[in-house]
Amino acid sequence: MTSAPAAEAAPDPTAPEPILLRHDAEGICTLTLNRPQARNALSVSLMTALQTALDAVAEDDAVKVVVISANGPAFCAGHDLKEVRANPGRSFYEALFQQCSNLMLAITRLPKPVIARVHGMATAAGCQLVATCDLAVAVPEARFATPGVNIGLFCSTPMVALSRNVGPKQAMEMLLTGRPLSADEALAAGLLTAVAPDVAALDAKVAELAGTIASKSPLTLAIGKEAFYRQLDMPLADAYAYASDVMTTNMLARDAEEGIDAFLEKRAPTWTGQ
Amino acid sequence: MTSAPAAEAAPDPTAPEPILLRHDAEGICTLTLNRPQARNALSVSLMTALQTALDAVAEDDAVKVVVISANGPAFCAGHDLKEVRANPGRSFYEALFQQCSNLMLAITRLPKPVIARVHGMATAAGCQLVATCDLAVAVPEARFATPGVNIGLFCSTPMVALSRNVGPKQAMEMLLTGRPLSADEALAAGLLTAVAPDVAALDAKVAELAGTIASKSPLTLAIGKEAFYRQLDMPLADAYAYASDVMTTNMLARDAEEGIDAFLEKRAPTWTGQ
Amino acid sequence: MTSAPAAEAAPDPTAPEPILLRHDAEGICTLTLNRPQARNALSVSLMTALQTALDAVAEDDAVKVVVISANGPAFCAGHDLKEVRANPGRSFYEALFQQCSNLMLAITRLPKPVIARVHGMATAAGCQLVATCDLAVAVPEARFATPGVNIGLFCSTPMVALSRNVGPKQAMEMLLTGRPLSADEALAAGLLTAVAPDVAALDAKVAELAGTIASKSPLTLAIGKEAFYRQLDMPLADAYAYASDVMTTNMLARDAEEGIDAFLEKRAPTWTGQ
Repeated sequence: MTSAPAAEAAPDPTAPEPILLRHDAEGICTLTLNRPQARNALSVSLMTALQTALDAVAEDDAVKVVVISANGPAFCAGHDLKEVRANPGRSFYEALFQQCSNLMLAITRLPKPVIARVHGMATAAGCQLVATCDLAVAVPEARFATPGVNIGLFCSTPMVALSRNVGPKQAMEMLLTGRPLSADEALAAGLLTAVAPDVAALDAKVAELAGTIASKSPLTLAIGKEAFYRQLDMPLADAYAYASDVMTTNMLARDAEEGIDAFLEKRAPTWTGQ
Repeated sequence: MTSAPAAEAAPDPTAPEPILLRHDAEGICTLTLNRPQARNALSVSLMTALQTALDAVAEDDAVKVVVISANGPAFCAGHDLKEVRANPGRSFYEALFQQCSNLMLAITRLPKPVIARVHGMATAAGCQLVATCDLAVAVPEARFATPGVNIGLFCSTPMVALSRNVGPKQAMEMLLTGRPLSADEALAAGLLTAVAPDVAALDAKVAELAGTIASKSPLTLAIGKEAFYRQLDMPLADAYAYASDVMTTNMLARDAEEGIDAFLEKRAPTWTGQ
Repeated sequence: MTSAPAAEAAPDPTAPEPILLRHDAEGICTLTLNRPQARNALSVSLMTALQTALDAVAEDDAVKVVVISANGPAFCAGHDLKEVRANPGRSFYEALFQQCSNLMLAITRLPKPVIARVHGMATAAGCQLVATCDLAVAVPEARFATPGVNIGLFCSTPMVALSRNVGPKQAMEMLLTGRPLSADEALAAGLLTAVAPDVAALDAKVAELAGTIASKSPLTLAIGKEAFYRQLDMPLADAYAYASDVMTTNMLARDAEEGIDAFLEKRAPTWTGQ
C-alpha cells in the first residue's frame, strides 16, 4: 500500500501538499482531488495532474480499477473561475476546454473501470466528471448541478456527458435553471449507480464495487469497456457487426478459455490477463 | 402586458376568436392553442399560426422564454382527422406531415426555451408537442398517448420525439397498444419535467420555471439550447470537439465575463445579451 | 389452435421433444425455448430453429404478434458454453456470434411485434433476447444479468441490446460486476414493460398485450415497427424527414382510411391489411 503524490518526485515534507493524491491498494488506484479550499476546482494544474495520473494508470498492470475521490467539503466545483478570468482571451479558453474534454475522454478511453466516490457537491465540470465515470456512488448530501447558466456560461461541455446519462427533459431542466439534483434524484435520473446512507457506507460500497471488479480478468475488462462506449455511438446493425468481432477476439484470449473451463468445472478461475 | 392574437392585425370585436392566442409578460410569451371544441387538433391553420408565432418570437428580443398552453378540456388531440379525410391524396398528406415536422423542428431550433403547460389529454402529434418542448409540466389528470395504431395510422412522426424522451420498451408499448400514460407514468418515463397537483399549482410551477429562465442571459440560453440538441446527435468525441468550441465562443461573450465577475464579486449580474 | 415443432416435419411420437415449440392461436404465435435441462442455452441448433421459425412467421399472414417463452426453471442462460468449448477456434466463434447477432436483428426487423414472457433467469444472450424484444413482461422472481465478465468473456453482444434499453451507469454496473437485476430493478431501468405478480398473471398480461396488438392492422404494425428502429439510429432532422415519408405512405394505405373513417363514424374498423 502506498500513499503518494501522483507525480513521480520523492516526497518533500516541506513542500506544499500535492493537488492530486494517489493511493494504491489491492489493484485499486484511488486518485483524490486535493484542493479542498478551492472546492477542488479543476485548475489547469489539477487537470494536468489528473491526466498524467490516468496516463500512468493506463499502463500500470498492477491497477485493475480506479476510484476518483475528493477532499474537503465539495467533490468538485468545475472550472477554476478565478484562473479563467485571470487569463482572458481565445487561446487560453480554447486550450482550457480542449484539455478538459481530453481529460473526460481519457476516462472513457481508460482500459480500466473508473468509479466516482461523491461525498459532496459536484457542479459544472465536476458534475461532468461524475457523469463521465463508468460508475458513481454518492451520499444523500451530495448535489449535482450544471449552473453555468447562472454566470452566463452555459454548461456545454458538461452536458455532453450529462445528456448521455440522463434524459433530455431532466438534463434541460438542470441546464436551463441551474437547479441542483439531490442524490436520490440523480440516482433516479441515471447519473448514479447507488446512494449510500453515509460516508462510511459510501466507502464500503465503493470498496465492494472496486473489489468485485478487481477480481475479474483485466484483459476482459479492457476489451469490454472499450467496446461498450464504441458501440454506443453506432447504428444497431453496425454495433452488432463490431461487437460480434469483439466477442470472437475475446473468446480467443486465454482468460476466456480459462474462465469458461473454470465455470464448467465449478472452480475459481486464474486470470493471466492474456 | 398584452393579450392578442398571434397575427399582427388589430383586434376586431366582431371577428371569430383566433385559433392561437399570444400573451406576453415579463419576457414570457405564452402561446395558447384555442380550438377547444376540436380539442386543439393541429389543423393546417393552427400549425401555420403556431409556426408564424414561433418565427416572430425567434426574432423578438423582448421574449426570453415561451410557454405553450391550451384552452378547453384537452391539451391537444393531434392532427385534425376530419381535415385529413377531407383532403385525400399524396400531395396534401406530404405537405401536412412536412409542415408538422417542420413545426416540431422549429421548437427545437428556437433560440429560446419552450415549456409545455399540459392541463389535459395530449395525444398523437399533441403528445409529440409535449415531447418536443424543452420542459413540460402537467397536472395529474393529464394523459399522454400515441394511439394512431387504433386508427390504422401508426404515430411515426410523434415517435421521433417520444423515443428521444422515453426508453424503447415504454415507447413501444405506447405505440403498439395505444395505451395512455398517466402524468405520473409520463414523469417517471422522462416525458415530463414535473407534475403539479392541480391547475393553480401547474400555473405556479410553469411561472416559476419560466421566471427562472427569463432571468438568465438570453445569449447564453440561445447558445446552450442550440448546442444541446446538436451534440445529442453526435458521436462522443465529435460532441466534445463541438462543445469545446461552443464553450470558447460563449466565454468570449460579454455576458460570460459579466456573469463570472458578478459571481466572484458576489453581486447580481447585469445581462446585455451580448 | 395448433401445437407443433417449429419445423415442418410431421410429428413422430418416438422422436425426441423438439428444442423449439410453436403454438399458434388467434393471431398469436408463441415460440417456446425447450431445452429446460440446459436452461434453454442458445446452442447452434436452438438458434437455427428460432431463426427458421422467425423467417416462417415473417411471411405468415395469420400471425399478428409473436411471444417468446421458455420451459423449465430458467428463461435463457445465454450461449451454450459446453458447445462453445467443444469447438475452439476462430471460425466457429465467428460463425456463432454472427448467427446470434443475426438472430437478434431478425427479431428487430420482424414485421410483427415480439413479446418476451420471462418466468425465470435471463442471462447473457438470454438477457439480450429480452432486451431485443419489443415488449417484455416478467414475474418478480425473474433475474436479468450479463455475467460474462465472471468467465472472462465480456457480454459485448448482449450489451448492444442492453445499452439501448437501460442507461450507461446501470448497464455498466451489470456488465462490470455481473450483478443480476431483480425484475423490479429491470422494470425501473427500462428493460421490461411490466412485472406481473405470478405466472398466472404473467400469462394474463402477455395475453392482454398480445391480444390488443393482434386487434390492430398488421400493415400498420409492420410500417410502424420498421420505422421505429430505423429512425432511432438517425439524427433528429433526418428522422423527421424519414418519418414524414412513412406517415404519407401509411396514410395512403386502405387501413388508414378505414381506421380514420371508423373513428369519425364511431364504429369499429375492419382491417384488410392493405
